[in-house]
Amino acid sequence: MQGGLPSLELVERVCSGERRAVARMLSRAEAGGEEAREALDLLYRRAGRAHVVGMTGVPGSGKSTLVAKLIAAALAAGRRIGVVAIDPSSPFSGGAILGDRIRMGEVSGHPAVFVRSMASRGALGGLAPGTLEAVDVLDAAGYDMVFVETVGVGQDEVDVVRAAHTTVVVSAPGLGDDIQAIKAGILEIADVHVVSKGDKPEADRTVTDLKAMLGLALPAAGLKRPVPVIKTSSARGEGIGELLAAIDAHRDHLVASGEYQGRRQAIRERRTLKAAEQILHEEFERHRQGRMADLVAELAAGTLSPQTAARRLVARIGTEIVP
Amino acid sequence: MQGGLPSLELVERVCSGERRAVARMLSRAEAGGEEAREALDLLYRRAGRAHVVGMTGVPGSGKSTLVAKLIAAALAAGRRIGVVAIDPSSPFSGGAILGDRIRMGEVSGHPAVFVRSMASRGALGGLAPGTLEAVDVLDAAGYDMVFVETVGVGQDEVDVVRAAHTTVVVSAPGLGDDIQAIKAGILEIADVHVVSKGDKPEADRTVTDLKAMLGLALPAAGLKRPVPVIKTSSARGEGIGELLAAIDAHRDHLVASGEYQGRRQAIRERRTLKAAEQILHEEFERHRQGRMADLVAELAAGTLSPQTAARRLVARIGTEIVP
Repeated sequence: MQGGLPSLELVERVCSGERRAVARMLSRAEAGGEEAREALDLLYRRAGRAHVVGMTGVPGSGKSTLVAKLIAAALAAGRRIGVVAIDPSSPFSGGAILGDRIRMGEVSGHPAVFVRSMASRGALGGLAPGTLEAVDVLDAAGYDMVFVETVGVGQDEVDVVRAAHTTVVVSAPGLGDDIQAIKAGILEIADVHVVSKGDKPEADRTVTDLKAMLGLALPAAGLKRPVPVIKTSSARGEGIGELLAAIDAHRDHLVASGEYQGRRQAIRERRTLKAAEQILHEEFERHRQGRMADLVAELAAGTLSPQTAARRLVARIGTEIVP
Repeated sequence: MQGGLPSLELVERVCSGERRAVARMLSRAEAGGEEAREALDLLYRRAGRAHVVGMTGVPGSGKSTLVAKLIAAALAAGRRIGVVAIDPSSPFSGGAILGDRIRMGEVSGHPAVFVRSMASRGALGGLAPGTLEAVDVLDAAGYDMVFVETVGVGQDEVDVVRAAHTTVVVSAPGLGDDIQAIKAGILEIADVHVVSKGDKPEADRTVTDLKAMLGLALPAAGLKRPVPVIKTSSARGEGIGELLAAIDAHRDHLVASGEYQGRRQAIRERRTLKAAEQILHEEFERHRQGRMADLVAELAAGTLSPQTAARRLVARIGTEIVP
């Protein structure tokens, strides 16, 4: 087994903040399987103190640079920061494309920062194992804030970001209509909006447009609290402190209003669903030559529709799983 | 029940190519449920003749305009064309954002064309019901080619496009680095590559870059056949005929090489998996207050991890589903 360290000992070391144990635990989570599950179950009960902040935005919004600036500001305020950077990855190799986030720059070497890049897609397809659990690991390791950063265009990525207490959606001026349409799909999940590249002349217009869109869209979505729109410029270092303050204010609002418990529960339920989908996916991929044999044969004959085959698949896997 | 028409009669009318029956069947598929499933199972056995072409590309690639031009070319060749246009949609309302594809322009009114816009996300989240089945409906209705068009950045959208016999990935010159990274995730699924906006001066460079990238990436992915890269200009109407020819050539290659059966089977299996994930998702959403109650309570207490809750969920739903 990887590392060979018993789960209980590894978990203790993670919880005492030992950097190498955190790295090892994250690798174990990524590898998946029984051993990972045991350790993660232990860790899960020790997590729950960190403020988890999801950061997403359309491609080209300069999100990674912004996250680096934000971390620098949080470090200056004396906080310990964990970062889970979700990379788009190849559906064939499963590997992360961007690898170590060079854009995180100097902050990634800081002793109070732990950055981990993770591929969004596993070797068997679906969300990569350990992606959501990485947040628990950093949380249990005592990081005050855990940022989950992703290019938020895919559903997997949106699901990851929604497993955060506070979700920040980054827009940039002048990215074209097609992109705006995509963005509309993630507009409603934002607790804080950012318009990046605030030094561009079109930025003020983007802020105005966004506020107008939010004014129209949010009452329909049943949101009560006005969502702040913060203009930032990574190049000029402007708006970063305000953004950190807005993120803190959102957490304070959740706690003061009593919404915090409800949100955490919604996150747990979404994560459960996501994990269930993953189990099904992995079981199917792993056993498609074996126990799926008759489904495969009937599918090949064209006599069984995918919809009906799917119902049989769920029933069969369900009876074989011992929780 | 919607429409009230018995499944068998509706299916017969669809198979005879009756336009209103096709529209009604698509609405029934979108509504989902038992009645839809019955009709779709009947239809599924009548489908299998159409050449299904998936078209995807990054936002801003001008894909919709290109599809309209391509349809016009296929119509000129005497073919009947079905189009399923997958729209990004709001995770809250579930509604399609782009609505009727105005960019399809004049071809959408042609008697030998049937265009249907579908939302990518259902009201309960997950892929919208009927999205993949819409292809079967148009196939069974006798359309020679069925195009499935989507902005291919999300996993749901990629899954939809991969349910095609021939997958076309559209790139555009000068869309920036972040977008290229995303695109890398869909590069390998292409059977035909298009560089759109061929009238732009940077287009030749994009073609060269893409060919270089394919030369490096594809042997590693185990692909034997060189993937054509076609430069098109919708504005000038250039390259459209070549694109149609490349799509036809790919189908001919699949048939001649014997790969066609294997690919169809892979599609059926992927669709089964996708449908299984959807069943699980919908069951969870539908019953989270009822039969999930004890899971929810244990999750709320923080004693049960989402991973372990997920295993119980799959087991429970499995035993409750009667295929």
